[in-house]
Amino acid sequence: MQNVTYTPSRPCRVEDVPAWDIETDVLVVGFGAAGSCAAIEARRTGARVCVLEVASAGGGSAALSGGEVYVGGSGGTSVQRANGFEDSTEDLAAYLTLSGGPGADGERVRVYAEGAEAHFRWLQELGVPFKGSYLPGKWIEPTTDDTLLWSGNELAWPFSATAKPAPRGHTVQFKGWGGGKVLMEHLCAQAAAFGADIRYNARALTLVVDRDGGVAGVVARIDGEVRFVRALKGVVLSAGGFIVNRDMVARFAPAALACVKEVSGGNDDGSGIRMGMAVGATAIHMDQFFATVPFFPPESLVKGIFVNERGERFINEDAYHGRVGHYVLRQPGGRAWLLVDNEIFGRPVIKPDVDIAAVGETWAEIEQELGIPAGALQHTVEKFNARAAEGQDPYFHKAAPWLRPLSVPPFAALSYCSEDLEAHAFTLGGLHTLPGGEVLDADGRPIAGLFAAGRTACGLPRWGEGYSSGLSLGDSTFFGRKAGRSAAQR
Amino acid sequence: MQNVTYTPSRPCRVEDVPAWDIETDVLVVGFGAAGSCAAIEARRTGARVCVLEVASAGGGSAALSGGEVYVGGSGGTSVQRANGFEDSTEDLAAYLTLSGGPGADGERVRVYAEGAEAHFRWLQELGVPFKGSYLPGKWIEPTTDDTLLWSGNELAWPFSATAKPAPRGHTVQFKGWGGGKVLMEHLCAQAAAFGADIRYNARALTLVVDRDGGVAGVVARIDGEVRFVRALKGVVLSAGGFIVNRDMVARFAPAALACVKEVSGGNDDGSGIRMGMAVGATAIHMDQFFATVPFFPPESLVKGIFVNERGERFINEDAYHGRVGHYVLRQPGGRAWLLVDNEIFGRPVIKPDVDIAAVGETWAEIEQELGIPAGALQHTVEKFNARAAEGQDPYFHKAAPWLRPLSVPPFAALSYCSEDLEAHAFTLGGLHTLPGGEVLDADGRPIAGLFAAGRTACGLPRWGEGYSSGLSLGDSTFFGRKAGRSAAQR
Repeated sequence: MQNVTYTPSRPCRVEDVPAWDIETDVLVVGFGAAGSCAAIEARRTGARVCVLEVASAGGGSAALSGGEVYVGGSGGTSVQRANGFEDSTEDLAAYLTLSGGPGADGERVRVYAEGAEAHFRWLQELGVPFKGSYLPGKWIEPTTDDTLLWSGNELAWPFSATAKPAPRGHTVQFKGWGGGKVLMEHLCAQAAAFGADIRYNARALTLVVDRDGGVAGVVARIDGEVRFVRALKGVVLSAGGFIVNRDMVARFAPAALACVKEVSGGNDDGSGIRMGMAVGATAIHMDQFFATVPFFPPESLVKGIFVNERGERFINEDAYHGRVGHYVLRQPGGRAWLLVDNEIFGRPVIKPDVDIAAVGETWAEIEQELGIPAGALQHTVEKFNARAAEGQDPYFHKAAPWLRPLSVPPFAALSYCSEDLEAHAFTLGGLHTLPGGEVLDADGRPIAGLFAAGRTACGLPRWGEGYSSGLSLGDSTFFGRKAGRSAAQR
Repeated sequence: MQNVTYTPSRPCRVEDVPAWDIETDVLVVGFGAAGSCAAIEARRTGARVCVLEVASAGGGSAALSGGEVYVGGSGGTSVQRANGFEDSTEDLAAYLTLSGGPGADGERVRVYAEGAEAHFRWLQELGVPFKGSYLPGKWIEPTTDDTLLWSGNELAWPFSATAKPAPRGHTVQFKGWGGGKVLMEHLCAQAAAFGADIRYNARALTLVVDRDGGVAGVVARIDGEVRFVRALKGVVLSAGGFIVNRDMVARFAPAALACVKEVSGGNDDGSGIRMGMAVGATAIHMDQFFATVPFFPPESLVKGIFVNERGERFINEDAYHGRVGHYVLRQPGGRAWLLVDNEIFGRPVIKPDVDIAAVGETWAEIEQELGIPAGALQHTVEKFNARAAEGQDPYFHKAAPWLRPLSVPPFAALSYCSEDLEAHAFTLGGLHTLPGGEVLDADGRPIAGLFAAGRTACGLPRWGEGYSSGLSLGDSTFFGRKAGRSAAQR
């Protein structure tokens, strides 16, 4: 077979497989959040499980994350309840529906809202550590080892007007940024303990299709050798998204090219999505991506107001930082500034060298320095200040705790213009699946033997403006389990 | 074969073809703008051509259009030059690049800009009638039989700041709306005259794939019978977009669900795109769609200003109506109104029963009636009026001819809120192709024997906000020709 080049976009026909080198029931491609949970659940049904991981260790991009899992509902998780928060399944579902945007998947939302609290217990039973304590305030990532956080738009309009707010970010116990590593150490160790056959340095090259268009296995390169791996029950694609594949980003999510920081462990090359497309699977919401501009902490900066080149506000600044980021990215001419006064100013922790585009004793000076039409910025600040003094924001519905007049000079404008942005991004589009993980073709019917989860699939998070921290890990672990179970029970 | 159900998402293997019923060189699926031009060009190379058209007559959705073709460049078409307009290839390319949005395809733009003027001559040589006269003014569709129109954003910011404007909408000679019918009668008659074998009532069911993943033909239902059609050189998919397939719209372009009027001849069911996906083709920019809110004529209404629920403007109202439409559709809460004074008011011709949400002697009354925060709308009108009196719009760069203060009471707000909108839409996403029509797989490589053009492909128009009238017909006829030639020369 040395003259054959295998590539994700060209499946291998089963009749062209010279011999099966490995046989398993469930083959999992990618050993990150979704893949590890798929492996655990598939093993628990008694199925043989083989995992192919391209890296030399497990964890995927999830291992580099903050380790937040977005769960709640069913009256509240033990942690929510212990800290005095109730959380109904209906409120969680309402929030997830809104955060899914115009393409929200009602059935997926329902399944998740009903099962999220039990899923949190499942993680705890596997030994994933959660301290159980609540950390108030507004964070990008906590620097403590606390569990429960406000990690999304729950308290921000319009989300707060639709669903009763509750904090739902459940963070793995770890001091500072990096709880994802702890989470993935546990999940990967459990998959091994349950008896999954894990192959590292193993790249899935392409799917093997049978005569009826179903998936029978994969061709892989394992430790440098081409190997044919038969999957009697199913293949689970859990190989991440495509943010590091700039060609795919340009084709499918060109607006994300503006984000220079890739949120990835390095292997989100879209190969899982491409393998699926090659056998007739459809991908949905491929234009959508998470993006953030971490303009705080210090959280006092949330009391500032963003304006564009017309001197107008465009978002309630207390919204989730990823939502604010999307609005910043779309302003005309790529121009946006955060206006602050002397009382709330502090250098952004994540970008202390932020460009200060203007400083002045009056807003008129700032306006002129920024080149905004005369009077426009002054008017915006005046009307904001007048209502903020009353604890009101009739224009953008910023919540009262973040409202105060910007009235203590000197004033400043921090640049969030495109050339100064270092926006972080990862992709949200992926293979179209049922909640059980079954991958769907162009007519919306399952492709036999093919499952997907995590960012290879299009899951709960499918609208950049609606993302919340913890949604991707919550979705990947929850629906990874379902995909593993669906494959094993086929 | 009576037990086999053929569906676009499942290709038929060539070894499962019992016998070929029809053999041709180039098989064209869909006899609209792209398909007719593909057939003509393929026949001109001497290839045998068979066309399958699901309807009982040719023309597709193009036959219901206004018959505008967006062409220019090369110094200007004969019509542009005769009417005193120069148009460089560079200006056309700059305009098309901007109108393609963040995903603009540089190579496709270049090929089109260089060839558009010759393409117009080609249409004339085929006998498509163009009167040659210029019609000034701002139109949704002209009511005269004139040729040359300003049909896009050429004169509107930011397009006008990037590319020297020229009118490029070239309309087929026909009195009133309906030039597309004349265009398609000529193109379909020419395809027949050149000897294409045209089958009506012929639905392509799915593609036939060979052992290497290439396309060898299609399975079709012709006059009620399943037929296997062999294409020795290639299949051209030119079967339209997917606006009438509401399930596909929900999956791929959910924001378009807000548009209740489908711009389609009725067969834009996405079957061409689905057939492509099923053999591993990728589709791009599937979220994008043309949408319009035809708020004028009378063109005096363009002198009004749109505001949202914050009382703020959001677009230069002299932009192309489809661009204005996209901005209207995305306003918070689906709230938008066109503010007019007594001098410019007239009932919109296309929606004379527009809901008049507020009438008053002062803008304060209008503001209150609309429930906009006190002072916000008044301020917007004041600052607009002050600068409009000087012929300036420093905020949104509306051009001088459309600037005058709104100062003659009574004033009114015409509702363009979501419940009153009857937005028109068609889809812009489709199969990823090279400019030559070759359909690309997930790794960006051509799929042997498969070509696509028109709205089955993702062409020049791929960004709803940047659309111009005539772009889809220009793209479909131009790249339809290329696809036909590429297939025939394979």
